[in-house]
Amino acid sequence: MASPLTDPATDFPRWYQDVLVAAELADNGPVRGTMVMRPWGYAIWELVQGEIDRRIKAAGADNAYFPLLIPESYLRREAEHVEGFSPELAVVTHGGGKELEEPVVVRPTSETIINSFFAKWVHSYRDLPLLINQWANVVRWELRPRVFLRTTEFLWQEGHTAHATERDARDYALRILREVYLPTMVDLLAIPVVTGHKTDRERFAGAVRTWTCEGMMGDGKALQMGTSHELGQNFSRAFGTQFSTETGTLEYPWQTSWGASSRLLGAIILCHGDAAGLRLPPAVAPAQVVVVAVRDDEGAVTAARALRDDLAAAGHRARLDDRVDVGFGRRSVGWEIKGVPVRVEVGPRELAEGQVTLVRRDTREKATVPLGGVVAEVGRLLGEIQQALHDQALAAQRARTTRVATVEEAVEAGGAGWAVLDWDRLGPEGEDRLGAQALTVRCLQAPDGGLALEEGAGGLLAVVGRAY
Amino acid sequence: MASPLTDPATDFPRWYQDVLVAAELADNGPVRGTMVMRPWGYAIWELVQGEIDRRIKAAGADNAYFPLLIPESYLRREAEHVEGFSPELAVVTHGGGKELEEPVVVRPTSETIINSFFAKWVHSYRDLPLLINQWANVVRWELRPRVFLRTTEFLWQEGHTAHATERDARDYALRILREVYLPTMVDLLAIPVVTGHKTDRERFAGAVRTWTCEGMMGDGKALQMGTSHELGQNFSRAFGTQFSTETGTLEYPWQTSWGASSRLLGAIILCHGDAAGLRLPPAVAPAQVVVVAVRDDEGAVTAARALRDDLAAAGHRARLDDRVDVGFGRRSVGWEIKGVPVRVEVGPRELAEGQVTLVRRDTREKATVPLGGVVAEVGRLLGEIQQALHDQALAAQRARTTRVATVEEAVEAGGAGWAVLDWDRLGPEGEDRLGAQALTVRCLQAPDGGLALEEGAGGLLAVVGRAY
Ligand SMILES: [Zn+2]
Ligand SMILES: [Zn+2]
Repeated sequence: MASPLTDPATDFPRWYQDVLVAAELADNGPVRGTMVMRPWGYAIWELVQGEIDRRIKAAGADNAYFPLLIPESYLRREAEHVEGFSPELAVVTHGGGKELEEPVVVRPTSETIINSFFAKWVHSYRDLPLLINQWANVVRWELRPRVFLRTTEFLWQEGHTAHATERDARDYALRILREVYLPTMVDLLAIPVVTGHKTDRERFAGAVRTWTCEGMMGDGKALQMGTSHELGQNFSRAFGTQFSTETGTLEYPWQTSWGASSRLLGAIILCHGDAAGLRLPPAVAPAQVVVVAVRDDEGAVTAARALRDDLAAAGHRARLDDRVDVGFGRRSVGWEIKGVPVRVEVGPRELAEGQVTLVRRDTREKATVPLGGVVAEVGRLLGEIQQALHDQALAAQRARTTRVATVEEAVEAGGAGWAVLDWDRLGPEGEDRLGAQALTVRCLQAPDGGLALEEGAGGLLAVVGRAY
Repeated sequence: MASPLTDPATDFPRWYQDVLVAAELADNGPVRGTMVMRPWGYAIWELVQGEIDRRIKAAGADNAYFPLLIPESYLRREAEHVEGFSPELAVVTHGGGKELEEPVVVRPTSETIINSFFAKWVHSYRDLPLLINQWANVVRWELRPRVFLRTTEFLWQEGHTAHATERDARDYALRILREVYLPTMVDLLAIPVVTGHKTDRERFAGAVRTWTCEGMMGDGKALQMGTSHELGQNFSRAFGTQFSTETGTLEYPWQTSWGASSRLLGAIILCHGDAAGLRLPPAVAPAQVVVVAVRDDEGAVTAARALRDDLAAAGHRARLDDRVDVGFGRRSVGWEIKGVPVRVEVGPRELAEGQVTLVRRDTREKATVPLGGVVAEVGRLLGEIQQALHDQALAAQRARTTRVATVEEAVEAGGAGWAVLDWDRLGPEGEDRLGAQALTVRCLQAPDGGLALEEGAGGLLAVVGRAY
C-alpha cells in the first residue's frame, strides 16, 4: 500500500502538512492562519491539558477567566509590551451594528487586563501570593502561519501571579518551569527538552527574565515549548497595583506569567513522527491500543470486541475497529498514520490457534501472542514505547548537538542541529551575526547545563539553533 | 454582623449583583458587557463543565475546536441566521496592522463555520452520523448585559451534528435534551426545569424546532438554561453538504445544534440563593465542606486540619479555614455568602468535650456532633442538602405556576410566576399581546406536560412567564 505521505527525509515541512491532513489532526480555517482542531487532534490536546491543569493546581494556582476583548488603551500602558504585540493585533472596530468609541483588541495575551484586576484585588501582603491561571484562546496575526506551530488563533493556558518579594516571584516562575512544564514535556510528551533563560533579544515583551523549555524536532530545529517569565514590577507599576507590607509601607508586587499552548501538538508530530505518520507517546494517545478485526468473520469480530473490553477494563484507552467492509490494509495504514501505539490484529486463522498479532507502532515490530496474554503484553508494550520514544528523541538531540568555539562553527553546526558555545564569546553582537543566518540563541545555561540562577553569573553557555 | 447584601425580597436584581461581588464569583470587564469569572465562580463552572462533557461523550459526540474568527460572508449564507445575529456581531476590521480585505466576525455561534467543514468531511452515509461538540467562548454584543445571564462574551459548549434522516436528527436533538441537559440541571444543579419546544417566534435563528429547558428563578422569572435545535436541512443546503446514500442517490443531511453556557452559574445563584448569599448544591460546590478553626488555639487548628484530611480522604471536597487572625464571625459570614453547603466549627471548649458544631448552609441549622461522627454526618448532610434544594425549588415552581384560561389571566399570573394556558386559545396573536406586557411563551408542551413529539399535534399547553 503506497504511503499517502511525503517522505520526511525529502521534504520535512511537506511531510508535516501531510500528517496533519492524513491523521485528521487539523485543518486550515478560512481566515488566514486560523485552524480547526479535529477530534483526533483535540483529544490529544485534552490529555495534554488535563496533565498541565493538574500540575498547575498542585502548584497552588486557581483557574479563572478574563475577557477576550481588551480596550486598546490597556495595551499601551506597558511600553515594551505594546511594542512587542502591536504588529500582531486583531482589532474590533464595530460592535452591535455601530462603530465603537474606543477600538478593542482581541487578546494576544492577558497581562494587561489581568493586571487591571490585580490592581483592584491586591491591597495587603495577606492577599499575596495571588496565583491565577486561565485556559483561553488568543489571537496574534501571523504572517507565515503553520498549523499548531504559529497560528493566528491558538489555545493555551496563561498563568499570572503576584508576590511580595522578587525572590518569591522568581521561585514561583522556576517552580512552574520545573513542576509543570518540564515533567509534562519529558514524562507525558516524551520530549527531552533543554531549559535555560532567554537573551535580552529573545525574552518576552515586558519581562525581565524568560525561562524556557526548548525541544529538538526531527529536522534538528528547535521548538520553544513553554515559557515562564519574571515580570519584575513592570506591570504592577503600569497598573498601579500596590500592597501594604507587614510594616505598613506600600510596595509594588513582583510578578510572573507563564504559558504553554496547542503548539505542543505540533511538537509531538515533529519530534516523534516518522515516514509512516504520527507516533504517539502512549500517555497522550486518545487510543493507546486499537483492536482490529481482520475480516468479516463472526468469531474474529466477537473476539476483537472481547479483547477491547478486557483492555479497557485494565485501564487502557482501547478502541475497536470492526469496519470489516473496509480493507484490512487500508485500516492498518490509517491507524499507523494516526500514531496509535499498539495494534492488535484478530484474524480467524490465528484465532483458531488461540493467538493474535500485536504490532507496536514505534518499531513496527510484530509478535504473535496467545489470547490470554494480550492484556499483560499490551501493558508492557505501552510502558516500553513511552520510554523508547523518549530515549530515541534524547539520542537524536545529543547526536545533533555540537560544542563549538566560534560563531562560524555555530553557523555550520546550526544547519543540522544545535550548537553550544560560550556566551561570553558570542554576546549580543555575535547573536546579531547568527540572526543574519536565521539562527537564534534558544537559551542560556549555567556551565554545567543547569539553570543560571545567579544574577550576572559568568561562564554561561548559549544553545544556538534554527527555530520554528 | 450586618449582611453586606441587599435583601432579595426588597430588590432581587440588586441582591444578585451583591452576591456576585461578595461571593467573589465574578466582576464586570472593562469592555461593556464582558465579565471576569473569578476563581470561586470558575471552579463551579469547571464542575458543571465536567458533568456536561462526560454526558456529551456518553452520547457519542467528539470534542473539536473551530476558529473564533469567521468571514462575514459565511454568516450571510443562511437567511434567518444572519438576520438573527447581525445586530449582535463584533467585527474585526484590522489585523496585523492592516485593514482586512474582508471583515471577519467574532463567532456569535458556530453553525456557519462548522458547516463549511462538514461540507468537506461528509461524502457518504458511512460518514454519518457526524457528532461534534466544542467548548468555546462566543461574543454577542449585548445592549443590557448582566453578569452570567446576558454577557457580551460567554463560555459555552455548542454541539453540531449531521444525520442521514430527519428522524435520526430529531432523535439526537431529543437525546441531548434528555440525557445531557435535563439530568445536569435536575441532578447536578438541583433545578427542576420544565422542557418543551419553542414557538416560531422564540425559536433559534435558522432552526426548524428548538427544544428547551426552562428553570424558575427565585423571583418567579424564567431562565432558558439549555436548548437543542433541529436545523432541518437549512445549513446543509446553504453550505452544499451532501452525502451519497446506500442506494447511490445524493442527499442533504439533517442536522442539529445544541448549547448550554456559563449562564448556568447565574441560574444557581438566582434559583437557590437567599438573604445570606449563595446556596450551592453540593454536587457543584468547589468546597462542599469547610472546616473552620474558631480561634487561635493549637489544639483547635490541629483538630480542624485532621478533620479536613479525613473528609477529603472520604471523597468530599473539603477546605480548611485556619485564618485565625481574622474574626470568626466574619469568616462564617464569608463562607455562607460563598454558599459552602456544610461548615464544621472547631472550637477549644467543645473540642475539650470531644465535639464540634456542624452548620448546614441551606437551613442554617446547627448540630453538635462527636468528633468520630463528623465524616459520616457530613456525608449524610451533603446528600440531604442536594435533595432539599431541589425539592424547595420544585415546591416554589409549583406554587408559582397557575393554570389560566385567558390572556388577561396569563398577564396577571405572569407577574409573579408562570401561567399555563391552551396554545390553541393563545396562538401567535395572543403571543404578541403577551409580548407587549414583557411576557413570553417559554415553551409548548403536550397536554400531559411532556414533550409534544407529534408534528401538528393539538391540545398543546403554553408555559408563559417573564424571562431573563
Ligand atoms: Zn485585600
Ligand atoms: Zn467520507
